Amino acid sequence: MGKTTVVLLSGGLDSATTLAMAVAQGYRPCALTFRYGQRHEIEIAAARRVAETLGAVEHVVTEIDLRTFGGSALTGDIAVPKGSRAPADAETIPVTYVPARNTIFLSFALAWAEVLGSSDIFIGVNAVDYSGYPDCRPQFIRAFESLAGLATRAGVEGGRPFRVHAPLIALTKAEIIRRGLELGVDYAITRSCYDPDTAGAACGECESCRLRLAGFAAAGAEDPAPYRKERLTERVGFEPTSP
Amino acid sequence: MGKTTVVLLSGGLDSATTLAMAVAQGYRPCALTFRYGQRHEIEIAAARRVAETLGAVEHVVTEIDLRTFGGSALTGDIAVPKGSRAPADAETIPVTYVPARNTIFLSFALAWAEVLGSSDIFIGVNAVDYSGYPDCRPQFIRAFESLAGLATRAGVEGGRPFRVHAPLIALTKAEIIRRGLELGVDYAITRSCYDPDTAGAACGECESCRLRLAGFAAAGAEDPAPYRKERLTERVGFEPTSP
Repeated sequence: MGKTTVVLLSGGLDSATTLAMAVAQGYRPCALTFRYGQRHEIEIAAARRVAETLGAVEHVVTEIDLRTFGGSALTGDIAVPKGSRAPADAETIPVTYVPARNTIFLSFALAWAEVLGSSDIFIGVNAVDYSGYPDCRPQFIRAFESLAGLATRAGVEGGRPFRVHAPLIALTKAEIIRRGLELGVDYAITRSCYDPDTAGAACGECESCRLRLAGFAAAGAEDPAPYRKERLTERVGFEPTSP
Repeated sequence: MGKTTVVLLSGGLDSATTLAMAVAQGYRPCALTFRYGQRHEIEIAAARRVAETLGAVEHVVTEIDLRTFGGSALTGDIAVPKGSRAPADAETIPVTYVPARNTIFLSFALAWAEVLGSSDIFIGVNAVDYSGYPDCRPQFIRAFESLAGLATRAGVEGGRPFRVHAPLIALTKAEIIRRGLELGVDYAITRSCYDPDTAGAACGECESCRLRLAGFAAAGAEDPAPYRKERLTERVGFEPTSP
Protein backbone atom coordinates (compact mmCIF):
# COMPACT_ATOMS: atom_id res chain seq x y z
CA MET A 1 0.00 0.00 0.00
CA GLY A 2 1.43 3.36 -1.05
CA LYS A 3 2.18 6.46 0.96
CA THR A 4 -0.70 8.70 1.91
CA THR A 5 -0.76 12.14 0.31
CA VAL A 6 -3.10 15.12 0.32
CA VAL A 7 -4.20 16.24 -3.16
CA LEU A 8 -5.76 19.66 -3.66
CA LEU A 9 -8.78 19.13 -5.89
CA SER A 10 -10.94 21.86 -7.42
CA GLY A 11 -12.98 19.85 -9.88
CA GLY A 12 -11.12 21.38 -12.80
CA LEU A 13 -9.00 19.78 -15.47
CA ASP A 14 -5.62 20.46 -13.86
CA SER A 15 -6.35 19.13 -10.39
CA ALA A 16 -8.12 16.04 -11.79
CA THR A 17 -5.01 15.28 -13.83
CA THR A 18 -2.85 15.85 -10.76
CA LEU A 19 -4.95 13.39 -8.76
CA ALA A 20 -4.59 10.80 -11.52
CA MET A 21 -0.82 11.34 -11.53
CA ALA A 22 -0.62 10.85 -7.74
CA VAL A 23 -2.52 7.56 -8.11
CA ALA A 24 -0.26 6.51 -10.99
CA GLN A 25 2.78 7.17 -8.76
CA GLY A 26 1.35 4.76 -6.19
CA TYR A 27 0.11 7.25 -3.60
CA ARG A 28 -3.05 6.81 -1.53
CA PRO A 29 -4.64 10.20 -2.23
CA CYS A 30 -6.81 12.11 0.26
CA ALA A 31 -8.54 14.84 -1.73
CA LEU A 32 -9.13 18.31 -0.28
CA THR A 33 -11.59 20.77 -1.81
CA PHE A 34 -12.43 24.30 -0.67
CA ARG A 35 -15.77 26.01 -0.71
CA TYR A 36 -14.73 29.64 -0.71
CA GLY A 37 -17.35 32.05 -1.84
CA GLN A 38 -17.63 30.72 -5.36
CA ARG A 39 -20.81 31.86 -6.97
CA HIS A 40 -21.82 28.33 -7.88
CA GLU A 41 -21.70 24.79 -6.51
CA ILE A 42 -20.75 23.33 -9.87
CA GLU A 43 -17.09 23.08 -8.95
CA ILE A 44 -17.83 21.26 -5.68
CA ALA A 45 -20.05 18.73 -7.44
CA ALA A 46 -17.36 18.19 -10.08
CA ALA A 47 -14.74 17.69 -7.37
CA ARG A 48 -16.92 15.02 -5.71
CA ARG A 49 -17.31 13.15 -9.00
CA VAL A 50 -13.60 13.39 -9.78
CA ALA A 51 -12.53 12.22 -6.29
CA GLU A 52 -14.82 9.21 -6.49
CA THR A 53 -14.03 8.30 -10.07
CA LEU A 54 -10.26 8.57 -9.75
CA GLY A 55 -10.07 6.65 -6.49
CA ALA A 56 -9.42 9.15 -3.69
CA VAL A 57 -9.44 7.20 -0.40
CA GLU A 58 -11.05 10.16 1.36
CA HIS A 59 -12.50 13.51 0.26
CA VAL A 60 -12.92 16.51 2.56
CA VAL A 61 -14.71 19.68 1.47
CA THR A 62 -13.88 22.53 3.85
CA GLU A 63 -15.27 26.03 3.88
CA ILE A 64 -13.26 29.23 4.11
CA ASP A 65 -14.50 32.75 3.58
CA LEU A 66 -12.09 34.73 1.46
CA ARG A 67 -14.80 37.31 0.80
CA THR A 68 -14.03 38.72 4.23
CA PHE A 69 -11.07 40.47 2.68
CA GLY A 70 -12.43 41.30 -0.79
CA GLY A 71 -10.03 41.78 -3.65
CA SER A 72 -10.78 39.42 -6.58
CA ALA A 73 -13.26 38.53 -9.29
CA LEU A 74 -13.59 34.91 -8.19
CA THR A 75 -14.68 35.75 -4.66
CA GLY A 76 -15.93 39.33 -4.79
CA ASP A 77 -18.27 41.42 -6.88
CA ILE A 78 -16.00 42.19 -9.80
CA ALA A 79 -17.39 40.89 -13.11
CA VAL A 80 -15.50 37.95 -14.62
CA PRO A 81 -13.76 39.29 -17.72
CA LYS A 82 -14.64 37.67 -21.04
CA GLY A 83 -12.04 36.91 -23.63
CA SER A 84 -8.33 36.85 -23.00
CA ARG A 85 -5.98 39.43 -21.68
CA ALA A 86 -4.50 41.67 -24.31
CA PRO A 87 -0.79 41.09 -24.96
CA ALA A 88 0.07 44.30 -23.11
CA ASP A 89 -1.41 42.78 -19.94
CA ALA A 90 0.41 39.49 -20.24
CA GLU A 91 3.01 40.50 -17.65
CA THR A 92 0.52 41.70 -15.06
CA ILE A 93 -1.46 39.63 -12.60
CA PRO A 94 -5.01 38.77 -13.74
CA VAL A 95 -8.04 40.27 -12.00
CA THR A 96 -9.19 36.73 -11.22
CA TYR A 97 -6.19 36.32 -8.91
CA VAL A 98 -7.31 35.55 -5.33
CA PRO A 99 -4.98 37.02 -2.72
CA ALA A 100 -2.74 34.39 -1.13
CA ARG A 101 -5.06 31.64 -2.32
CA ASN A 102 -2.51 28.90 -2.87
CA THR A 103 -0.77 29.81 0.40
CA ILE A 104 -4.07 29.31 2.22
CA PHE A 105 -4.89 26.10 0.32
CA LEU A 106 -1.45 24.62 0.97
CA SER A 107 -1.68 25.57 4.67
CA PHE A 108 -4.87 23.57 5.09
CA ALA A 109 -3.38 20.69 3.10
CA LEU A 110 -0.38 20.83 5.45
CA ALA A 111 -2.65 20.63 8.51
CA TRP A 112 -4.40 17.58 7.11
CA ALA A 113 -1.15 15.97 5.99
CA GLU A 114 0.19 16.34 9.51
CA VAL A 115 -2.87 14.68 11.01
CA LEU A 116 -2.59 11.87 8.45
CA GLY A 117 1.10 11.42 9.16
CA SER A 118 1.81 12.28 5.54
CA SER A 119 4.68 14.43 4.30
CA ASP A 120 3.42 14.86 0.74
CA ILE A 121 1.02 17.27 -0.92
CA PHE A 122 0.05 17.36 -4.60
CA ILE A 123 -1.10 20.65 -6.15
CA GLY A 124 -2.05 21.23 -9.78
CA VAL A 125 -0.48 24.63 -10.27
CA ASN A 126 0.86 25.52 -13.65
CA ALA A 127 3.36 28.23 -14.44
CA VAL A 128 2.90 28.12 -18.22
CA ASP A 129 -0.68 29.17 -18.83
CA TYR A 130 -1.04 31.16 -15.60
CA SER A 131 2.33 32.81 -15.40
CA GLY A 132 0.71 35.97 -14.05
CA TYR A 133 -0.10 34.31 -10.71
CA PRO A 134 2.75 34.72 -8.23
CA ASP A 135 1.67 31.68 -6.23
CA CYS A 136 1.88 29.33 -9.25
CA ARG A 137 5.63 29.74 -9.70
CA PRO A 138 8.23 27.07 -8.89
CA GLN A 139 10.01 29.34 -6.40
CA PHE A 140 6.76 29.75 -4.47
CA ILE A 141 6.28 25.98 -4.30
CA ARG A 142 9.87 25.48 -3.09
CA ALA A 143 9.40 28.19 -0.44
CA PHE A 144 6.26 26.48 0.84
CA GLU A 145 8.09 23.19 0.97
CA SER A 146 10.77 24.76 3.18
CA LEU A 147 8.11 26.29 5.39
CA ALA A 148 6.28 22.97 5.72
CA GLY A 149 9.43 21.25 6.95
CA LEU A 150 9.72 23.83 9.72
CA ALA A 151 6.03 24.23 10.53
CA THR A 152 5.04 20.79 11.63
CA ARG A 153 5.62 18.27 14.35
CA ALA A 154 6.61 15.71 11.72
CA GLY A 155 9.31 17.99 10.37
CA VAL A 156 10.67 18.82 13.82
CA GLU A 157 10.46 15.43 15.50
CA GLY A 158 11.03 13.13 12.59
CA GLY A 159 13.42 15.21 10.55
CA ARG A 160 11.35 14.06 7.59
CA PRO A 161 11.56 16.34 4.56
CA PHE A 162 8.23 17.58 3.27
CA ARG A 163 7.44 17.37 -0.44
CA VAL A 164 5.05 19.62 -2.34
CA HIS A 165 4.52 17.91 -5.70
CA ALA A 166 3.50 20.21 -8.55
CA PRO A 167 3.70 17.80 -11.50
CA LEU A 168 1.96 20.14 -13.95
CA ILE A 169 4.07 23.18 -13.22
CA ALA A 170 6.09 23.13 -16.43
CA LEU A 171 3.53 21.48 -18.75
CA THR A 172 1.46 23.18 -21.41
CA LYS A 173 -2.29 22.66 -21.27
CA ALA A 174 -2.07 20.27 -24.22
CA GLU A 175 0.61 18.22 -22.44
CA ILE A 176 -1.54 18.08 -19.30
CA ILE A 177 -4.52 16.85 -21.31
CA ARG A 178 -2.47 14.25 -23.18
CA ARG A 179 -1.06 12.92 -19.92
CA GLY A 180 -4.55 12.80 -18.35
CA LEU A 181 -6.01 10.98 -21.33
CA GLU A 182 -3.18 8.42 -21.11
CA LEU A 183 -4.12 7.90 -17.45
CA GLY A 184 -7.79 7.47 -18.31
CA VAL A 185 -9.11 10.73 -16.84
CA ASP A 186 -12.70 11.34 -17.93
CA TYR A 187 -12.62 15.07 -18.63
CA ALA A 188 -16.39 15.08 -19.17
CA ILE A 189 -16.85 15.25 -15.40
CA THR A 190 -14.36 18.08 -14.80
CA ARG A 191 -15.28 21.77 -14.82
CA SER A 192 -13.01 24.70 -15.49
CA CYS A 193 -15.40 27.56 -16.33
CA TYR A 194 -15.40 30.72 -14.23
CA ASP A 195 -19.01 31.38 -15.19
CA PRO A 196 -21.06 28.20 -15.82
CA ASP A 197 -24.85 28.21 -16.22
CA THR A 198 -27.10 26.65 -13.58
CA ALA A 199 -26.99 23.28 -15.35
CA GLY A 200 -23.19 23.32 -15.20
CA ALA A 201 -22.54 24.04 -18.85
CA ALA A 202 -19.40 26.08 -19.42
CA CYS A 203 -19.56 29.54 -21.03
CA GLY A 204 -16.78 28.84 -23.55
CA GLU A 205 -15.67 32.47 -23.37
CA CYS A 206 -13.90 33.15 -20.09
CA GLU A 207 -10.13 32.86 -19.92
CA SER A 208 -10.32 29.45 -18.25
CA CYS A 209 -12.62 28.05 -20.94
CA ARG A 210 -10.48 29.47 -23.71
CA LEU A 211 -7.27 27.97 -22.28
CA ARG A 212 -9.02 24.64 -21.88
CA LEU A 213 -10.44 24.61 -25.40
CA ALA A 214 -7.11 25.68 -26.86
CA GLY A 215 -5.43 22.89 -24.89
CA PHE A 216 -7.79 20.24 -26.26
CA ALA A 217 -7.34 21.62 -29.77
CA ALA A 218 -3.55 21.50 -29.43
CA ALA A 219 -3.75 17.97 -27.99
CA GLY A 220 -5.82 16.93 -30.98
CA ALA A 221 -8.69 15.86 -28.75
CA GLU A 222 -12.30 16.82 -28.27
CA ASP A 223 -13.35 18.36 -24.92
CA PRO A 224 -16.17 16.09 -23.70
CA ALA A 225 -17.46 18.63 -21.13
CA PRO A 226 -20.75 20.46 -21.83
CA TYR A 227 -20.70 24.03 -23.21
CA ARG A 228 -23.71 26.24 -23.47
CA LYS A 229 -22.73 27.78 -26.78
CA GLU A 230 -21.09 26.48 -29.87
CA ARG A 231 -17.54 25.64 -28.96
CA LEU A 232 -14.87 28.12 -29.65
CA THR A 233 -12.23 25.83 -31.04
CA GLU A 234 -12.13 27.87 -34.22
CA ARG A 235 -11.30 31.11 -32.48
CA VAL A 236 -8.96 30.33 -29.66
CA GLY A 237 -6.08 32.32 -31.06
CA PHE A 238 -6.36 34.66 -28.06
CA GLU A 239 -7.31 37.66 -30.11
CA PRO A 240 -9.23 40.24 -28.04
CA THR A 241 -12.99 39.75 -28.29
CA SER A 242 -15.69 42.38 -28.00
CA PRO A 243 -17.40 42.39 -24.61
CA MET B 1 -0.59 58.43 9.52
CA GLY B 2 1.35 55.22 9.96
CA LYS B 3 1.63 52.17 7.74
CA THR B 4 -1.23 49.70 7.78
CA THR B 5 -0.52 46.30 9.27
CA VAL B 6 -2.50 43.15 9.98
CA VAL B 7 -2.30 41.99 13.61
CA LEU B 8 -3.35 38.46 14.56
CA LEU B 9 -5.49 38.79 17.67
CA SER B 10 -6.80 35.94 19.80
CA GLY B 11 -8.04 37.84 22.82
CA GLY B 12 -5.22 36.47 24.94
CA LEU B 13 -2.44 38.25 26.77
CA ASP B 14 0.25 37.81 24.12
CA SER B 15 -1.69 39.03 21.11
CA ALA B 16 -3.12 42.00 23.07
CA THR B 17 0.44 43.02 23.97
CA THR B 18 1.49 42.56 20.35
CA LEU B 19 -1.34 44.84 19.19
CA ALA B 20 -0.27 47.49 21.71
CA MET B 21 3.32 47.22 20.45
CA ALA B 22 2.20 47.68 16.82
CA VAL B 23 0.30 50.82 17.85
CA ALA B 24 3.32 52.07 19.83
CA GLN B 25 5.48 51.61 16.69
CA GLY B 26 3.10 53.88 14.79
CA TYR B 27 1.25 51.28 12.71
CA ARG B 28 -2.43 51.46 11.83
CA PRO B 29 -3.47 47.98 12.96
CA CYS B 30 -6.19 45.89 11.32
CA ALA B 31 -6.96 43.06 13.73
CA LEU B 32 -7.73 39.53 12.52
CA THR B 33 -9.36 36.91 14.73
CA PHE B 34 -10.28 33.31 13.90
CA ARG B 35 -13.27 31.36 15.03
CA TYR B 36 -12.01 27.82 14.62
CA GLY B 37 -13.91 25.25 16.53
CA GLN B 38 -13.10 26.58 19.96
CA ARG B 39 -15.48 25.21 22.50
CA HIS B 40 -16.40 28.69 23.75
CA GLU B 41 -17.00 32.20 22.46
CA ILE B 42 -15.09 33.76 25.35
CA GLU B 43 -11.98 34.29 23.27
CA ILE B 44 -13.89 36.02 20.46
CA ALA B 45 -15.59 38.38 22.91
CA ALA B 46 -12.22 39.15 24.51
CA ALA B 47 -10.70 39.81 21.09
CA ARG B 48 -13.48 42.29 20.29
CA ARG B 49 -12.89 44.16 23.54
CA VAL B 50 -9.14 44.21 23.03
CA ALA B 51 -9.39 45.42 19.41
CA GLU B 52 -11.69 48.25 20.39
CA THR B 53 -9.81 49.26 23.52
CA LEU B 54 -6.35 49.27 21.95
CA GLY B 55 -7.41 51.16 18.84
CA ALA B 56 -7.55 48.69 15.95
CA VAL B 57 -8.79 50.59 12.89
CA GLU B 58 -10.67 47.51 11.71
CA HIS B 59 -11.43 44.07 13.16
CA VAL B 60 -12.38 41.01 11.11
CA VAL B 61 -13.47 37.73 12.69
CA THR B 62 -13.28 34.93 10.15
CA GLU B 63 -14.33 31.33 10.53
CA ILE B 64 -12.29 28.28 9.62
CA ASP B 65 -13.01 24.70 10.47
CA LEU B 66 -9.89 22.91 11.63
CA ARG B 67 -12.04 20.16 13.14
CA THR B 68 -12.36 18.75 9.62
CA PHE B 69 -8.93 17.25 10.09
CA GLY B 70 -8.99 16.38 13.81
CA GLY B 71 -5.73 16.10 15.67
CA SER B 72 -5.62 18.42 18.70
CA ALA B 73 -7.16 19.15 22.10
CA LEU B 74 -8.08 22.74 21.21
CA THR B 75 -10.20 21.77 18.24
CA GLY B 76 -11.06 18.11 18.71
CA ASP B 77 -12.43 15.89 21.41
CA ILE B 78 -9.27 15.28 23.41
CA ALA B 79 -9.58 16.53 27.03
CA VAL B 80 -7.51 19.62 27.87
CA PRO B 81 -4.75 18.45 30.20
CA LYS B 82 -4.57 20.04 33.64
CA GLY B 83 -1.32 21.01 35.26
CA SER B 84 1.98 21.33 33.46
CA ARG B 85 3.88 18.92 31.36
CA ALA B 86 6.28 16.79 33.31
CA PRO B 87 9.98 17.62 32.74
CA ALA B 88 10.40 14.48 30.66
CA ASP B 89 7.86 15.87 28.18
CA ALA B 90 9.46 19.28 27.91
CA GLU B 91 11.10 18.44 24.57
CA THR B 92 7.96 17.07 22.96
CA ILE B 93 5.14 18.95 21.32
CA PRO B 94 2.12 19.57 23.59
CA VAL B 95 -1.18 17.82 22.91
CA THR B 96 -2.80 21.28 22.61
CA TYR B 97 -0.79 21.89 19.43
CA VAL B 98 -3.07 22.53 16.44
CA PRO B 99 -1.64 21.21 13.16
CA ALA B 100 -0.28 23.99 10.97
CA ARG B 101 -2.27 26.57 12.90
CA ASN B 102 0.12 29.48 12.60
CA THR B 103 0.73 28.66 8.93
CA ILE B 104 -3.01 28.91 8.32
CA PHE B 105 -3.40 32.06 10.42
CA LEU B 106 -0.48 33.79 8.68
CA SER B 107 -1.86 32.78 5.26
CA PHE B 108 -5.14 34.54 5.95
CA ALA B 109 -3.27 37.54 7.36
CA LEU B 110 -1.24 37.59 4.16
CA ALA B 111 -4.40 37.60 2.04
CA TRP B 112 -5.82 40.53 3.97
CA ALA B 113 -2.49 42.39 3.97
CA GLU B 114 -2.37 42.06 0.20
CA VAL B 115 -5.89 43.48 -0.18
CA LEU B 116 -4.98 46.34 2.18
CA GLY B 117 -1.76 47.05 0.29
CA SER B 118 0.17 46.29 3.45
CA SER B 119 3.46 44.38 3.65
CA ASP B 120 3.47 43.88 7.43
CA ILE B 121 1.94 41.30 9.75
CA PHE B 122 2.26 41.19 13.54
CA ILE B 123 1.95 37.85 15.34
CA GLY B 124 2.31 37.26 19.07
CA VAL B 125 4.18 33.97 18.97
CA ASN B 126 6.62 33.22 21.69
CA ALA B 127 9.44 30.71 21.59
CA VAL B 128 10.25 30.83 25.29
CA ASP B 129 7.18 29.52 27.06
CA TYR B 130 5.93 27.49 24.08
CA SER B 131 9.15 26.08 22.76
CA GLY B 132 7.42 22.78 21.96
CA TYR B 133 5.41 24.36 19.12
CA PRO B 134 7.30 24.12 15.82
CA ASP B 135 5.38 27.05 14.35
CA CYS B 136 6.41 29.44 17.15
CA ARG B 137 10.12 29.33 16.32
CA PRO B 138 12.09 32.17 14.73
CA GLN B 139 13.10 30.00 11.76
CA PHE B 140 9.42 29.34 11.02
CA ILE B 141 8.65 33.06 11.07
CA ARG B 142 11.57 33.81 8.73
CA ALA B 143 10.45 31.03 6.35
CA PHE B 144 6.94 32.49 6.22
CA GLU B 145 8.40 35.93 5.53
CA SER B 146 10.29 34.50 2.53
CA LEU B 147 7.16 32.76 1.31
CA ALA B 148 5.09 35.93 1.66
CA GLY B 149 7.51 37.87 -0.51
CA LEU B 150 7.05 35.28 -3.27
CA ALA B 151 3.34 34.61 -2.82
CA THR B 152 1.79 37.96 -3.48
CA ARG B 153 1.23 40.44 -6.20
CA ALA B 154 2.84 43.12 -4.01
CA GLY B 155 6.01 41.07 -3.65
CA VAL B 156 6.18 40.30 -7.36
CA GLU B 157 5.17 43.63 -8.87
CA GLY B 158 6.50 46.01 -6.28
CA GLY B 159 9.57 44.12 -5.17
CA ARG B 160 8.56 45.19 -1.67
CA PRO B 161 9.94 42.95 1.08
CA PHE B 162 7.34 41.48 3.39
CA ARG B 163 7.83 41.68 7.15
CA VAL B 164 6.37 39.28 9.72
CA HIS B 165 6.87 40.98 13.08
CA ALA B 166 7.03 38.65 16.08
CA PRO B 167 8.02 41.11 18.83
CA LEU B 168 7.39 38.67 21.69
CA ILE B 169 9.34 35.79 20.25
CA ALA B 170 12.32 36.03 22.62
CA LEU B 171 10.57 37.52 25.67
CA THR B 172 9.63 35.70 28.86
CA LYS B 173 6.01 35.92 29.97
CA ALA B 174 7.04 38.36 32.72
CA GLU B 175 8.79 40.60 30.19
CA ILE B 176 5.72 40.54 27.94
CA ILE B 177 3.50 41.56 30.83
CA ARG B 178 5.84 44.35 31.96
CA ARG B 179 5.99 45.73 28.42
CA GLY B 180 2.21 45.57 28.12
CA LEU B 181 1.67 47.31 31.44
CA GLU B 182 4.06 50.09 30.34
CA LEU B 183 1.94 50.48 27.19
CA GLY B 184 -1.26 50.64 29.24
CA VAL B 185 -2.74 47.28 28.24
CA ASP B 186 -5.71 46.41 30.44
CA TYR B 187 -5.15 42.70 31.03
CA ALA B 188 -8.51 42.43 32.79
CA ILE B 189 -10.17 42.17 29.37
CA THR B 190 -7.84 39.53 27.94
CA ARG B 191 -8.42 35.79 28.24
CA SER B 192 -5.84 33.02 28.06
CA CYS B 193 -7.59 30.04 29.61
CA TYR B 194 -8.07 26.85 27.55
CA ASP B 195 -11.08 25.94 29.68
CA PRO B 196 -13.05 28.96 30.98
CA ASP B 197 -16.48 28.68 32.62
CA THR B 198 -19.59 30.06 30.93
CA ALA B 199 -19.13 33.45 32.59
CA GLY B 200 -15.60 33.69 31.17
CA ALA B 201 -13.73 33.04 34.39
CA ALA B 202 -10.44 31.23 33.86
CA CYS B 203 -9.79 27.81 35.37
CA GLY B 204 -6.42 28.73 36.84
CA GLU B 205 -5.16 25.21 36.27
CA CYS B 206 -4.54 24.62 32.58
CA GLU B 207 -1.08 25.18 31.15
CA SER B 208 -2.05 28.55 29.68
CA CYS B 209 -3.43 29.80 33.03
CA ARG B 210 -0.38 28.57 34.89
CA LEU B 211 2.05 30.27 32.51
CA ARG B 212 0.02 33.47 32.75
CA LEU B 213 -0.15 33.45 36.54
CA ALA B 214 3.55 32.62 36.82
CA GLY B 215 4.28 35.51 34.46
CA PHE B 216 2.32 37.98 36.54
CA ALA B 217 4.01 36.70 39.68
CA ALA B 218 7.45 37.08 38.10
CA ALA B 219 6.55 40.56 36.87
CA GLY B 220 5.51 41.50 40.41
CA ALA B 221 1.99 42.33 39.25
CA GLU B 222 -1.50 41.07 39.98
CA ASP B 223 -3.49 39.44 37.16
CA PRO B 224 -6.70 41.47 36.97
CA ALA B 225 -8.61 38.82 34.94
CA PRO B 226 -11.32 36.78 36.66
CA TYR B 227 -10.56 33.24 37.87
CA ARG B 228 -13.16 30.82 39.09
CA LYS B 229 -11.06 29.38 41.87
CA GLU B 230 -8.60 30.86 44.26
CA ARG B 231 -5.64 31.98 42.23
CA LEU B 232 -2.71 29.70 41.98
CA THR B 233 0.08 32.21 42.44
CA GLU B 234 1.35 30.27 45.43
CA ARG B 235 1.83 27.05 43.47
CA VAL B 236 3.05 27.98 40.06
CA GLY B 237 6.40 26.29 40.43
CA PHE B 238 5.36 23.85 37.65
CA GLU B 239 5.45 20.83 39.88
CA PRO B 240 3.22 18.03 38.58
CA THR B 241 -0.29 18.23 40.03
CA SER B 242 -2.67 15.40 40.65
CA PRO B 243 -5.43 15.14 38.04
